[in-house]
Amino acid sequence: MIIDCHGHYTTAPKELQKYRDAQIAALKDAKHAPQKGAIAISDDQIRESLESAQLKIQRERGTDITIFSPRAAGMGHHIGNETTSRHWSEHCNELIRRVCALYPENFVGVCQLPQTPGVSPKNCIAELERCVKDFGFIGCNLNPDPSGGYWTDPPLTDKYWYPIYEKMVELDVPAMIHVSMSCNPAFHTTGGHYINGDTTAFMQFIVDPQLFKDFPTLKFIVPHGGGAVPYHWGRYRGLAQDMGKPPLKELLLNNVYFDTCVYHRPGIELLLKVVPADNILFASEMVGAVKGVDPETGHNYDDTKRYLDAIDWLKPADREKIFHGNVSKVYPRFGKRAAKKR
Amino acid sequence: MIIDCHGHYTTAPKELQKYRDAQIAALKDAKHAPQKGAIAISDDQIRESLESAQLKIQRERGTDITIFSPRAAGMGHHIGNETTSRHWSEHCNELIRRVCALYPENFVGVCQLPQTPGVSPKNCIAELERCVKDFGFIGCNLNPDPSGGYWTDPPLTDKYWYPIYEKMVELDVPAMIHVSMSCNPAFHTTGGHYINGDTTAFMQFIVDPQLFKDFPTLKFIVPHGGGAVPYHWGRYRGLAQDMGKPPLKELLLNNVYFDTCVYHRPGIELLLKVVPADNILFASEMVGAVKGVDPETGHNYDDTKRYLDAIDWLKPADREKIFHGNVSKVYPRFGKRAAKKR
Repeated sequence: MIIDCHGHYTTAPKELQKYRDAQIAALKDAKHAPQKGAIAISDDQIRESLESAQLKIQRERGTDITIFSPRAAGMGHHIGNETTSRHWSEHCNELIRRVCALYPENFVGVCQLPQTPGVSPKNCIAELERCVKDFGFIGCNLNPDPSGGYWTDPPLTDKYWYPIYEKMVELDVPAMIHVSMSCNPAFHTTGGHYINGDTTAFMQFIVDPQLFKDFPTLKFIVPHGGGAVPYHWGRYRGLAQDMGKPPLKELLLNNVYFDTCVYHRPGIELLLKVVPADNILFASEMVGAVKGVDPETGHNYDDTKRYLDAIDWLKPADREKIFHGNVSKVYPRFGKRAAKKR
Repeated sequence: MIIDCHGHYTTAPKELQKYRDAQIAALKDAKHAPQKGAIAISDDQIRESLESAQLKIQRERGTDITIFSPRAAGMGHHIGNETTSRHWSEHCNELIRRVCALYPENFVGVCQLPQTPGVSPKNCIAELERCVKDFGFIGCNLNPDPSGGYWTDPPLTDKYWYPIYEKMVELDVPAMIHVSMSCNPAFHTTGGHYINGDTTAFMQFIVDPQLFKDFPTLKFIVPHGGGAVPYHWGRYRGLAQDMGKPPLKELLLNNVYFDTCVYHRPGIELLLKVVPADNILFASEMVGAVKGVDPETGHNYDDTKRYLDAIDWLKPADREKIFHGNVSKVYPRFGKRAAKKR
């Protein structure tokens, strides 16, 4: 079984964006009392949006299940206020729930959190609980920078974030650390802000690893192959060492995992060389940041399974961990779900 | 001849920092009229600061010349105002001039610019001109984020930056894109902000390559191995392609170069595999971000020459370009200086 741990519903029916556009437009009217409202999307529309995209690609590439969450760039936590974020997140998560109900063999849900810059992540607990307990979701996406590129909230190691970590630990769900769209002209969303978010979070963990003493079972997935981290693995090993910290393996590799969203073979090879297989989870982010076909290979850039398949020095046991085995470790509720089905 | 294109005067005599501390302390006194003042550092102090550090390491590692600039983290463009930045930059650059005068065979100067967030880079022209024309410097360090981690200035491709580019082109000097210390708690300076700065700038160039049509001879060095870029080379190729841009080589590799400040062999190998040798310049950043010895190799993490030396598939002609040949192309004044000496 091949599990892709990083997919977003980037192909959602256009009614979703229409709702969002109206929600944002209404923010300009100070007299407007925001309401959650409804979004009319039929099951057929959902099927159609997936059959021609994620499901087709799953079949073509030979992957089985995608751990699926709302479009990351669409989270837009900087827009509006707590209420805006709550209504929008609830709708996005409810749509993921419907996807998972329609295709229980193909998708497992992960939720967006109703974060807002400067607002305690406490206010995300109810939605996380609803998504895990009521919807059967197995994780969440946590935005380390709800401001959208101005980085005005404290580092992820700050006690500011502890309420959501307490709930994650209680529910036994991990978080993928994932920023949303950039509203800072300095940062391109998928080419700058995403990768910076990954790199930034990892370094925060090195600086203040007390977090993992306080929450020994807390688990994070750093997406996009860990941002710049594996490429600069020597730098991070050296920085930790200069700070008098233990080796990275001991410092944080019980809590931090990387996905394989790296869109060329040399990058994937580097990742496999420097990061232990125990800490790597297969992912492609399809349909995501890069949609084209690489003229150098004739295949999609984001067909990351091909890169892994082509690496003949990868041990079968490690390959199994990356494609499948590690998922049950990082997402314990995935394992329980699989056990229940057997 | 082996040229290290990225070294900072991180070991400057303590009088320099004392000056800076006093300068910062004086900012609190609104009645204080800032003056440039003087810093008393003897030639012997300068010699001592280098003999036990950069010069010793040059000899040990077998490198010849370091392209040398003030400490990058120390630039602190976000501190004080234009005048603060001007006085501080002038002192830092004058010290580099003295280093280069004392050791003309070992160091060539690159200047810090007196940038300030929200202030037009026009105000850096005079100092750039002084450093190049009067001091014989061959380049500058350009901070894409003078705010120190809040990214409040426009992207490097914005016309806001054109005045300094016009002067760079006129003087025929490149800029290394280099942020300074982070004052944003989200970003560790050398482990987060530095690498993000590199990644961010490269993506800005993809988004708006008009810059290189307007300034076809403008040259940038993206340090720290290009941040996350070579690791995600497929992502950047794919993003450019999805935007309808030409291949990266054509889009920006006449203007953008990467150094080799990547502190482990797998990272260096990746860099050499994906980036053409014509676009790579040898560098170590010593004495810099990582000072320790890698227990896996028994050598300093930042001894990047060793990684390059160990790669037997690197063609001799490419090795020569990386260690030496490309420098005269990227820093034309280095070439002229060498020609004059012959």
